Amino acid sequence: MKTNLGKKTILYPMPVLMVGTYDQKGKPDLMAAAWGGIFNDGMVCLCLDRGHKTVTNLKERKAFTVAVADEKNVVACDYVGIVSAYEVQDKVAKAGLTAVKSANVDAPVIEELPLTLECELVSYDDNTEQAVGNIVNVLADDSILTDGKVDPAKLGAITYDPVHHTYIKLGQVVGKAFSDGKKLK
Amino acid sequence: MKTNLGKKTILYPMPVLMVGTYDQKGKPDLMAAAWGGIFNDGMVCLCLDRGHKTVTNLKERKAFTVAVADEKNVVACDYVGIVSAYEVQDKVAKAGLTAVKSANVDAPVIEELPLTLECELVSYDDNTEQAVGNIVNVLADDSILTDGKVDPAKLGAITYDPVHHTYIKLGQVVGKAFSDGKKLK
Repeated sequence: MKTNLGKKTILYPMPVLMVGTYDQKGKPDLMAAAWGGIFNDGMVCLCLDRGHKTVTNLKERKAFTVAVADEKNVVACDYVGIVSAYEVQDKVAKAGLTAVKSANVDAPVIEELPLTLECELVSYDDNTEQAVGNIVNVLADDSILTDGKVDPAKLGAITYDPVHHTYIKLGQVVGKAFSDGKKLK
Repeated sequence: MKTNLGKKTILYPMPVLMVGTYDQKGKPDLMAAAWGGIFNDGMVCLCLDRGHKTVTNLKERKAFTVAVADEKNVVACDYVGIVSAYEVQDKVAKAGLTAVKSANVDAPVIEELPLTLECELVSYDDNTEQAVGNIVNVLADDSILTDGKVDPAKLGAITYDPVHHTYIKLGQVVGKAFSDGKKLK
């Protein structure tokens, strides 16, 4: 039996995207976003309410970073998601995080977060509130690499549960893509 | 130390979205998509190559469903991701899946998949290949509900690892959103 739950904004898994920007004075900002993902080959999209300082920043600096929230930094990532840079000065530092200038785009890289997409802004639509970014580089901490590749077991990425408002970490490998389905061919 | 991996289309977690449509004769189609997510409140977006039959279908029927791939159906979900409806007749049936007409939109619901977003097409952009859908109802199998709410532990949603091309299931709860961060306030 299936039950109609009505119109809801739920999906599994939802990412926990940590969006880093600089304001016009060069102060770093960081916020969390669960609405977004890969837009197209080498591009990301994010739904960012135009009221966020992040939106003012990325429209001005034409760049942003997207880091993956991980188990190790769950408290800091949640913190920057619940306070606004309009209210808290030095929000990134208060979270215990360290912002360093990206070598590739005009946006900050958060040292403690192990995987970061460095993006140039392609567009921000004031009506739909969708930001689109071109990934120019993926920056990975050596601690999450195995044979030079990102290792999900080391990364410890978390996902947002929109129903229970919890963070869930990724678990076991349960299948092989472009392969398991061949059994049915 | 951090390493530049260059321009790559990677993100964690990426969803495994099962997109259901009808063609003009009413034949159901189903494909897998990892590029997409929530677009805005009550809306989804998907990057769907215009060469897919799904794109022809959703432009014609103005509707689609998005089901969440789960551990139980990993073989079937992978199968529909590797064969085209242009090549395989009755792709859904060959996957061992059952398509039934949605009560809410002009698109099929896959009986075996426990969580489905029923969507009306808002737009498909031929240049960016982004499909946007308005979620009109979320349909959940009673087997994944606890106290009337979706229970991620019962759902068994999988995520796509774009580096190793594996499917990873969601694991343990490791934090509480809008709460853990209060410790730093």
